[in-house]
Amino acid sequence: MSDLAYTIGVDLGGTNLRAAAIDRAGTILDKTSGSTNFEEGRDAVLDDIASAVVQLRSRFGASGFYGIGIGVPGFIDIEKGVIVGTHNLLGFDGFPMRDELSRRLETPVILENDANAAALGEKWMGAGREVNDLVLLTLGTGIGGGIISGGRVLHGFVGMAGELGHITVFPGGNICGCGNHGCLEKHASATAVEAMAKLVSLGDDLTAKDVYDLAEQGNRNAVRVFEQMGSALGIAIATLINIFNFPLYLLSGGVLPAWKFFSPAMMGEVETRSFTFRNTRTRIEPATLGNQAGLFGAAYLPFLLQKLGAGA
Amino acid sequence: MSDLAYTIGVDLGGTNLRAAAIDRAGTILDKTSGSTNFEEGRDAVLDDIASAVVQLRSRFGASGFYGIGIGVPGFIDIEKGVIVGTHNLLGFDGFPMRDELSRRLETPVILENDANAAALGEKWMGAGREVNDLVLLTLGTGIGGGIISGGRVLHGFVGMAGELGHITVFPGGNICGCGNHGCLEKHASATAVEAMAKLVSLGDDLTAKDVYDLAEQGNRNAVRVFEQMGSALGIAIATLINIFNFPLYLLSGGVLPAWKFFSPAMMGEVETRSFTFRNTRTRIEPATLGNQAGLFGAAYLPFLLQKLGAGA
Repeated sequence: MSDLAYTIGVDLGGTNLRAAAIDRAGTILDKTSGSTNFEEGRDAVLDDIASAVVQLRSRFGASGFYGIGIGVPGFIDIEKGVIVGTHNLLGFDGFPMRDELSRRLETPVILENDANAAALGEKWMGAGREVNDLVLLTLGTGIGGGIISGGRVLHGFVGMAGELGHITVFPGGNICGCGNHGCLEKHASATAVEAMAKLVSLGDDLTAKDVYDLAEQGNRNAVRVFEQMGSALGIAIATLINIFNFPLYLLSGGVLPAWKFFSPAMMGEVETRSFTFRNTRTRIEPATLGNQAGLFGAAYLPFLLQKLGAGA
Repeated sequence: MSDLAYTIGVDLGGTNLRAAAIDRAGTILDKTSGSTNFEEGRDAVLDDIASAVVQLRSRFGASGFYGIGIGVPGFIDIEKGVIVGTHNLLGFDGFPMRDELSRRLETPVILENDANAAALGEKWMGAGREVNDLVLLTLGTGIGGGIISGGRVLHGFVGMAGELGHITVFPGGNICGCGNHGCLEKHASATAVEAMAKLVSLGDDLTAKDVYDLAEQGNRNAVRVFEQMGSALGIAIATLINIFNFPLYLLSGGVLPAWKFFSPAMMGEVETRSFTFRNTRTRIEPATLGNQAGLFGAAYLPFLLQKLGAGA
């Protein structure tokens, strides 16, 4: 075991905590998971993280251990290692989480936004292994995004880059909690699929999965819902391609299984709206790591830091 | 003069060729300009560039000379140093311009897209001096864009990044030569201002400057044209802010003098459409180098290459 080099990646969700020890080659050595209970308070959550780490580390030792990466559903002030503006993580807003965990566990800790971590995970071990530049869109309840530029996460100056769910696709479109109208996530997330299903009288309480099942059964309105969703997605992706000219755009999340229903409309919009797409071999593809992308990306953070040199 | 370190920047336009010797501190030592006549053929243009360089270099010597940067109105395949897909530069499409000039002039040559060079110029000596990350939009006949990330131009994988004029702002909007509908440049360029002036019967052959003069005289429809233009611009800038979370977004080009007429609508859209803008100290400002930005950016290229190490 003397040549073992590994890290521990933690994916801190709203309700779940997952952690894995992963080696430099991207092999999961072991993992653990549990529920995250934010109602129990900040210390309970920190204890849960610390005990998951201690449990995994005790199994593989300290000598080849490179540190901990944590994916968090919130904005990260990268320099300070602090979560900012996160309403759904009670007690963590402004809290020096990185330094506190680093002190407790006596090891380097790196925080990253969860969608950014997922994008980095896809770059390291998933669909983006052969590129250094990619954009990931996570299609779930909302739409998150992560941008990998030159092999690194693009953070922006206060860690808020990649808010791709809030790209305006229809200037007079659906209202969004962010204050805007026509945000991508109000037209192409699982929530948007459910709202559209209601509008075409498919049912009041259908999940996106229910709408998918109806589409599979040949329900024309269910298919149209996904066509609309794909259209909105295509408008946003065309804009991203025109801005970045990256070789790869990945989609993941709960709506991904409906790929065959939404992708024709999506690709049609991209073809029409991006001459860069038409003139290059730009790829738009499903991500491959599913809900483990964030775990891989989190685990990759200490390796990446070492590769780039501390402080980079 | 033994401590002099300088480069020569060349701004190759559709009709003008400008060149300047600029030192490491950003001081223009000397400059020259002339017309570019692409009808005379590729060799004539190359001769014009070479003679401008030779003329400037003869004045400042070879010992402190770091090379040549050239801003070109087309896409650049950076690795190969070749202009690609440039219909308005007769004879240059696919031509190994960098290597040919480097051979003739016996010095390193770096090519860059003109809007990218302008963005880099603003970063080096203009409105972006204090940041490492910015986006520049050039509002002229069309709308160009340059993205500076981590102090460097973001190129994309085939040099086509930054096509910000083709961000979709109105999915069902004005048709664009690129095949899309509702491209930013069809709603916010000088050409768009002129087309809108026609639509509100201000006149058939007004220039954007004429429309500006009418706005200055209090013509309500002329003011509304700029409000519409500012609105489209605001939608695109909000999207850029949500994507990049960069600290600075700069505007330049022929429409810039109308700032006071278009910026209130622009800022209104940005406020509404970007919570990142509302929650950070993001700045949207006029660029300060005017039509010299590209010249400064071009001249900066050899210094930047040296700073980053060859090949970076």
